[in-house]
Amino acid sequence: MEQDRYELGLQKLAEVDGRGGEEVIAGLRHIAPDLGTYIIEFAFGDIYCREGLTLPERELITLSSLLTAGGCEPQLEVHIHGALNVGIPPRKVIETFIQCIPYTGFPKVLNAVGVAKKVFADRDINLENSQE
Amino acid sequence: MEQDRYELGLQKLAEVDGRGGEEVIAGLRHIAPDLGTYIIEFAFGDIYCREGLTLPERELITLSSLLTAGGCEPQLEVHIHGALNVGIPPRKVIETFIQCIPYTGFPKVLNAVGVAKKVFADRDINLENSQE
Amino acid sequence: MEQDRYELGLQKLAEVDGRGGEEVIAGLRHIAPDLGTYIIEFAFGDIYCREGLTLPERELITLSSLLTAGGCEPQLEVHIHGALNVGIPPRKVIETFIQCIPYTGFPKVLNAVGVAKKVFADRDINLENSQE
Amino acid sequence: MEQDRYELGLQKLAEVDGRGGEEVIAGLRHIAPDLGTYIIEFAFGDIYCREGLTLPERELITLSSLLTAGGCEPQLEVHIHGALNVGIPPRKVIETFIQCIPYTGFPKVLNAVGVAKKVFADRDINLENSQE
Amino acid sequence: MEQDRYELGLQKLAEVDGRGGEEVIAGLRHIAPDLGTYIIEFAFGDIYCREGLTLPERELITLSSLLTAGGCEPQLEVHIHGALNVGIPPRKVIETFIQCIPYTGFPKVLNAVGVAKKVFADRDINLENSQE
Amino acid sequence: MEQDRYELGLQKLAEVDGRGGEEVIAGLRHIAPDLGTYIIEFAFGDIYCREGLTLPERELITLSSLLTAGGCEPQLEVHIHGALNVGIPPRKVIETFIQCIPYTGFPKVLNAVGVAKKVFADRDINLENSQE
Repeated sequence: MEQDRYELGLQKLAEVDGRGGEEVIAGLRHIAPDLGTYIIEFAFGDIYCREGLTLPERELITLSSLLTAGGCEPQLEVHIHGALNVGIPPRKVIETFIQCIPYTGFPKVLNAVGVAKKVFADRDINLENSQE
Repeated sequence: MEQDRYELGLQKLAEVDGRGGEEVIAGLRHIAPDLGTYIIEFAFGDIYCREGLTLPERELITLSSLLTAGGCEPQLEVHIHGALNVGIPPRKVIETFIQCIPYTGFPKVLNAVGVAKKVFADRDINLENSQE
Repeated sequence: MEQDRYELGLQKLAEVDGRGGEEVIAGLRHIAPDLGTYIIEFAFGDIYCREGLTLPERELITLSSLLTAGGCEPQLEVHIHGALNVGIPPRKVIETFIQCIPYTGFPKVLNAVGVAKKVFADRDINLENSQE
Repeated sequence: MEQDRYELGLQKLAEVDGRGGEEVIAGLRHIAPDLGTYIIEFAFGDIYCREGLTLPERELITLSSLLTAGGCEPQLEVHIHGALNVGIPPRKVIETFIQCIPYTGFPKVLNAVGVAKKVFADRDINLENSQE
Repeated sequence: MEQDRYELGLQKLAEVDGRGGEEVIAGLRHIAPDLGTYIIEFAFGDIYCREGLTLPERELITLSSLLTAGGCEPQLEVHIHGALNVGIPPRKVIETFIQCIPYTGFPKVLNAVGVAKKVFADRDINLENSQE
Repeated sequence: MEQDRYELGLQKLAEVDGRGGEEVIAGLRHIAPDLGTYIIEFAFGDIYCREGLTLPERELITLSSLLTAGGCEPQLEVHIHGALNVGIPPRKVIETFIQCIPYTGFPKVLNAVGVAKKVFADRDINLENSQE
């Protein structure tokens, strides 16, 4: 039932993207509320709720896709938070970006690392002192 | 030392891409041998040999990047083989492509599934009979 | 209810893409049937069934998006058929591609016209003799 | 004659993009005036003056192309104004972006809606109170 | 005058792309002749006839743009011929592709080298025996 | 030996990108120092140090690739400086961007010219008074 997809999606969105995801949806309320509904129902209710990949694996795949697409810095910011929220260590976020170099070249990787720098600062993450 | 990067890369390339990778390098021999050397030294010797991600994780990230870039069907073919070579089950390759839908839309996912269809047929993989 | 989205989507897919759409879905049956389900439920059941744009307007937008994305020749083929199926005259398909030149440059427009050439030949459309 | 293409283009640019278009051309005067001339002569004098599509149809196609290309937020801003200038209702601009979801995924659609939000605010358009 | 732009463009097209360019234009005759006219008038009559860059420099820039865009293999084929036609040595075509690696990653460079391989074979160019 | 690649790359980076390049590397120190090392060793030590193209030719190719990729404004800024540093006259930078119009369309060229405007202002370059 539709209600189920929406409820499941809302729960998954909260689990993955936390406040950042909620803000994206809230920002659409007065201009394109259906877009927010589709993100919740389809992206999170249908896709993220599937079996076959762990949530951390889904976030690695998402980070790679957003980095490669280019021009998706706002979404990269939400999903770097998301990756950390589901337990990916900060170093592994950076390592994911480095794995993309042979496939995307340096500029897109530099842009993604720039977004990570902002997110890590927001969360007081200091890679040099961190164990992971 | 350079020799080390080349040797390490060649070994990693064989481990990941198997015959498909060797054929790519061989195909460059008479026209752009240095390009083959850089793929071995840099992509496989430097990047794939790093710590911080497992080989299967590196292949999930690579599949997502190649799907998202578009127009990389020959490289997707090599790396779907690569993903299977490092132990990713066929269903998980498809699941990786499905995770990209919200970020890339359907056409690129359809193209990637089309390549997987060819690779699975080459390897006599039948998802319907398979346990994974 | 889910059944409704699927049924509505299937009907809309048949209306727009006709046999080409059915073949795409059939081709996914043994490898990624859920991908076919999402195309039917989400792309056609949710999006194409919305109010606010006519079907021909939706196809103009789709042709422009596929041309601009690049590397989507198989999907362009399906949707050039789709555009003709919903009543867009062949000349207007070409005119849509020409409108993209300032935004995408010539190569992508040339590729799209190449696909139209194939579709028009398949449907025995001869622009020179045609009134539209 | 060249003069004609330039004059026709200038008139069409004013009709479509209004002040936003003029500002783009003015901003090029001291660094790349020929680029401005080509936009006027070729994009507007040649392409936008063609028959076969209405101006609103041309703008739907343009919005779809700019959204799909990514990284074209300044041009999207000019052409959302342009779409409204030629009579496309604000809701239909949003609907055009929503039609792109299956072909581009959510991030590019979110970016385009973000630009529309700014343009609608600049023009005091409130979709919730509006009839269209 | 328009005639001049067309005549100048046709001459420049013949000089650069030779038979390959003529075939592209001829292939458009029955489906989108105006597209051919714009390529001649605007791309070759306006842009390629400008001062400020040599023809070989224009072709290096074109090869880099087509490689980076992706999915432009047919146009790459025409312009690799074009580069050779205006005097760029075969090795320098390959070197141009190698310079793109840090900015585009390996897959697009591999695709471009694959097209060069075909063009060089068509022209009986053997890099190993060649002095340049 | 590795040291050699690093030393050669550092020297070449300083020659081409000057302070802008050093700032990019410095900005990576606390978050992704290995990314900086790969840029120095691979992009500058391996690729930029090759024979077969002059440094100005390498920068023309780089500018074209970054413009075409889109979303690489920070890297375009560094490499417009780089182009000027290796002796390309300001007008030729603009001419390079204009050569891309037929292959990328106007929006990406407008974005690149916008970055050049900022770089030229930073360097007190006034194209109208300049001889080149």
